[in-house]
Amino acid sequence: MKLPRLSRAAFERHLPILTWSRSYDRDTLTSDAVAAVIVTIMLIPQSLAYAIFGTSRALAVGPVAVVSLMTAAAVGNLGLQSPAEYAAAAITLAFISGVLLTLMGVLRLGFLANFLSHPVIAGFITASGVLIATSQLKHIFGISAHGHALPEIIASLLASQHLTNPITLFIGLSTVGFLFWVRKGLKPLLLALGLKPRLADILAKAGPVAAVAITTLAVWVFDLENKGVAIVGEVPMGLPPLTAPSLNPELWGQLFMSAVLISIIGFVESVSVAQTLAAKKRQRITPDQELVGLGTSNIAAAMTGGYPVTGGFARSVVNFDAGAETPAAGAFTAIGILLAALLLTPLLYFLPKATLAATIIVAVLSLVDFSILKRAWGYSVVDFAAVAATIVLTLGVGVEMGVSAGVVLSVGLFLYKTSRPHVAEVGLVPGTQHFRNILRHEVLTDPFIVSLRIDESLYFANARFLEDYVYNRIACEEPIRHVILMCSAVNEIDMSALESLEAINSRLQDLGISLHLSEVKGPVMDRLQRSHFLDELSGKVFLSQYEAMRSLSTSPHIDRASAAH
Amino acid sequence: MKLPRLSRAAFERHLPILTWSRSYDRDTLTSDAVAAVIVTIMLIPQSLAYAIFGTSRALAVGPVAVVSLMTAAAVGNLGLQSPAEYAAAAITLAFISGVLLTLMGVLRLGFLANFLSHPVIAGFITASGVLIATSQLKHIFGISAHGHALPEIIASLLASQHLTNPITLFIGLSTVGFLFWVRKGLKPLLLALGLKPRLADILAKAGPVAAVAITTLAVWVFDLENKGVAIVGEVPMGLPPLTAPSLNPELWGQLFMSAVLISIIGFVESVSVAQTLAAKKRQRITPDQELVGLGTSNIAAAMTGGYPVTGGFARSVVNFDAGAETPAAGAFTAIGILLAALLLTPLLYFLPKATLAATIIVAVLSLVDFSILKRAWGYSVVDFAAVAATIVLTLGVGVEMGVSAGVVLSVGLFLYKTSRPHVAEVGLVPGTQHFRNILRHEVLTDPFIVSLRIDESLYFANARFLEDYVYNRIACEEPIRHVILMCSAVNEIDMSALESLEAINSRLQDLGISLHLSEVKGPVMDRLQRSHFLDELSGKVFLSQYEAMRSLSTSPHIDRASAAH
Repeated sequence: MKLPRLSRAAFERHLPILTWSRSYDRDTLTSDAVAAVIVTIMLIPQSLAYAIFGTSRALAVGPVAVVSLMTAAAVGNLGLQSPAEYAAAAITLAFISGVLLTLMGVLRLGFLANFLSHPVIAGFITASGVLIATSQLKHIFGISAHGHALPEIIASLLASQHLTNPITLFIGLSTVGFLFWVRKGLKPLLLALGLKPRLADILAKAGPVAAVAITTLAVWVFDLENKGVAIVGEVPMGLPPLTAPSLNPELWGQLFMSAVLISIIGFVESVSVAQTLAAKKRQRITPDQELVGLGTSNIAAAMTGGYPVTGGFARSVVNFDAGAETPAAGAFTAIGILLAALLLTPLLYFLPKATLAATIIVAVLSLVDFSILKRAWGYSVVDFAAVAATIVLTLGVGVEMGVSAGVVLSVGLFLYKTSRPHVAEVGLVPGTQHFRNILRHEVLTDPFIVSLRIDESLYFANARFLEDYVYNRIACEEPIRHVILMCSAVNEIDMSALESLEAINSRLQDLGISLHLSEVKGPVMDRLQRSHFLDELSGKVFLSQYEAMRSLSTSPHIDRASAAH
Repeated sequence: MKLPRLSRAAFERHLPILTWSRSYDRDTLTSDAVAAVIVTIMLIPQSLAYAIFGTSRALAVGPVAVVSLMTAAAVGNLGLQSPAEYAAAAITLAFISGVLLTLMGVLRLGFLANFLSHPVIAGFITASGVLIATSQLKHIFGISAHGHALPEIIASLLASQHLTNPITLFIGLSTVGFLFWVRKGLKPLLLALGLKPRLADILAKAGPVAAVAITTLAVWVFDLENKGVAIVGEVPMGLPPLTAPSLNPELWGQLFMSAVLISIIGFVESVSVAQTLAAKKRQRITPDQELVGLGTSNIAAAMTGGYPVTGGFARSVVNFDAGAETPAAGAFTAIGILLAALLLTPLLYFLPKATLAATIIVAVLSLVDFSILKRAWGYSVVDFAAVAATIVLTLGVGVEMGVSAGVVLSVGLFLYKTSRPHVAEVGLVPGTQHFRNILRHEVLTDPFIVSLRIDESLYFANARFLEDYVYNRIACEEPIRHVILMCSAVNEIDMSALESLEAINSRLQDLGISLHLSEVKGPVMDRLQRSHFLDELSGKVFLSQYEAMRSLSTSPHIDRASAAH
């Protein structure tokens, strides 16, 4: 194998840092550093929460809500007992996911993410938000519960043997209330008090930090730990240890499908937000290169005790709003979180779990948006079916089933539609050379000619449908002499459809009817020329439907229409 | 629920016998009876062979080669020991398959069969023929072997501890040679001897009966049984017993996926041959009604000790060639086979297994046709990939894997193609109102207008592709003012694609470029009108691309072209 000589351009494509680092100056540095400080402040409570509940300390990379939930579901299904086994499985999941993402990037499989439709993604995120919020309720009530789907979680909440601790409930509910108020009411208040918009914005976004500080202080001052309020307790301090993923083939087998789903969901979330933000600045991203970036991040996470990570909506938007200009802002954030992990963890000993749960609930409920159901219903039944199935199955059975069902259903319904294509019988719009559906427009036709516009590529799933359609159409009393298939919407004729066309041609010929094609596209024509079909065709192939009608019609209408023009 | 009043027409649709029995006369009876005699003669050896090797006596219904192979593979995978368990599993398989087929018919799921493309079916039948022929070699050589895929069967033939029995080998090879000669050489010889074509045809087709008679006689006369020639021995005589399928849920679980595949393959084989033959007589079949017919046949098979059955290519063609006019011919054949089962089985005691194997080998080798590989290669790489994968995996791994891989691959490649659609930049063909690809035709364009014809429905899998394509196209030095998306090939715009169109519209608007649509089809337009997109669209929706160009272009070329017309 000859190694390709890597040009400077190729290097820059695969190592994007080479591009932006050359123009990195003092101003850009300031912007990035400010963004890093803001994101660090934002991330401390949420990241710590995931780190604590996920038994992982990989704060420097991005654990996000939905992927955390999927990780918990995947690892929870294994029926492991000890936290160490749990952590080892999560690390292995991150590693498999990292390898898969990197491979997908190298093999340029980024297009696979396109099979998750927008409605399925929206439904999945909404349902996941509800699931995550529900699963945190136990910390607000100070009771125990478990499960990965709504019926299970609710049943286990209701069946809990513990009594609700009133102080825990008070902390949880007041934090939830405070955080919602911070979101909606604090910024307008600060602006009314005369603060500058930028500063008001930063203060409003730092609300969770205030909640963490106040409730932690309250626990310490009033000794609430001994009054039944669950606290975070000892948080491992310092740098993350180097870890190695398990290479146990059985564990890999159990985790593989979960890793595939987590990789694709994480990738879609990343690419969606990256594209949205890139578009705002007229920049472009390369999905396959993003895959490699995410893959290596996950491998790095696995090496430092982390679980699967991805680029999250919330943190990326904060980073962008805070003024980040290059990926260096991410590195600065990492340094900030590192310092927090080294220095701040002892301060979090008295942090109530109810506060963390409240932070998570408020964060994920902002992702919940059931209006997608209404919009999909108004637009198309198929889109509605995909969203509804995704939401119902995610809530009722679990995240993996929900997203898989959404994909399978949307692909299945697409295939079903293409297997029964719309076929329009067309006629000439008077005064033009344009042909439209005879049922929708006032058009001119010829009693001896049937013009059928087939609104789909012809392939195996609809080859038989086409035969049936044509045979049914000609089974009438009219003295049909010509059938013209208008192929303006036929983007492909595969071998099965070719055989059907041959069958139609020979059957029509037996009945004394000629078969013609019109408006056959270049790539389709290229392929037909490689078969014997064009030699056997009883009629002709016309450049346009208009030319076909002019040449075949004996009706004075058609000629008059064209002459009038 | 209100019960629908069944009209006479509905009765006839669901009980087709009502239609043809009314016009049943003496001539039709004669034709059907002659066909029945011929098919009975044809079927005795082959049906007996399947009955013996499949440990089933359901001769009255149609066991066919490929479905027999799939049944053997499915039941063989269960690791059963006794022939009784084997038979019970086969009966249960027939029952599940019957229920599935009937349900599919009632639910009008006949269209599912369309997802098996012609090349996949052809590849599957060819590979199955090779597998069946190879699996019969052990009887020709008089050794033992097993397995459901080629490597396994060949390895087990080579590893056989038995020595080849020379007499068995002689019987086997000479029967194979004789049967091939009968197929190719006997009919011309009989015609040369002055026989009438119809009689020569019947005699030539009765060749297997002669082979069975001669070899059976030879074994009896020369006492070959005691010289190591394996014979059929005791064949259960008389009417089939009434049997009941097992209702063991575990067995149902193990057999379910096999039953699904067998049902679909059997149905496709049935419908293909039925459609081909119906077309020859200008008749039509109703696939959903065929499903019910096949389903009840399978349930009947399960009730009488049979295994999964279907309408086979070979027997149906024989039936048709022999002059059958109505399904009554099938009933007469059933009576013929019943009489054979009652009276002829003792005569078959000395029939060598090698003769049966030779009959099967010659019959299935006529199904083997590797030329499909060459034809697919010449026509399209995608079709070739589907055939090649089907053949290689059927031979190498087994029938179920082969056909599943063929379906998954052809559907997957279709989806892949639609996710990266062909987009043509189009211009006006001079002297017409027709627009074609600027790279293939001499066309007129306007430097301020980009006209893109999108050759695919817009749906979730290609929504992002469209955005990328449009953004890349406008990222140039040209002073573009209008982008027209020509939607003649867009048969569907789903919600994901709608969101992409909204994104394109707003991005183009920011750049001072208007977005227009042309030739939007009725059903697509209906849907767009239910969204806000048309209100937000910066440009217009034109009936035709020509109208769009006439209205937007300032180029004198375009006006001159239309004026010249």
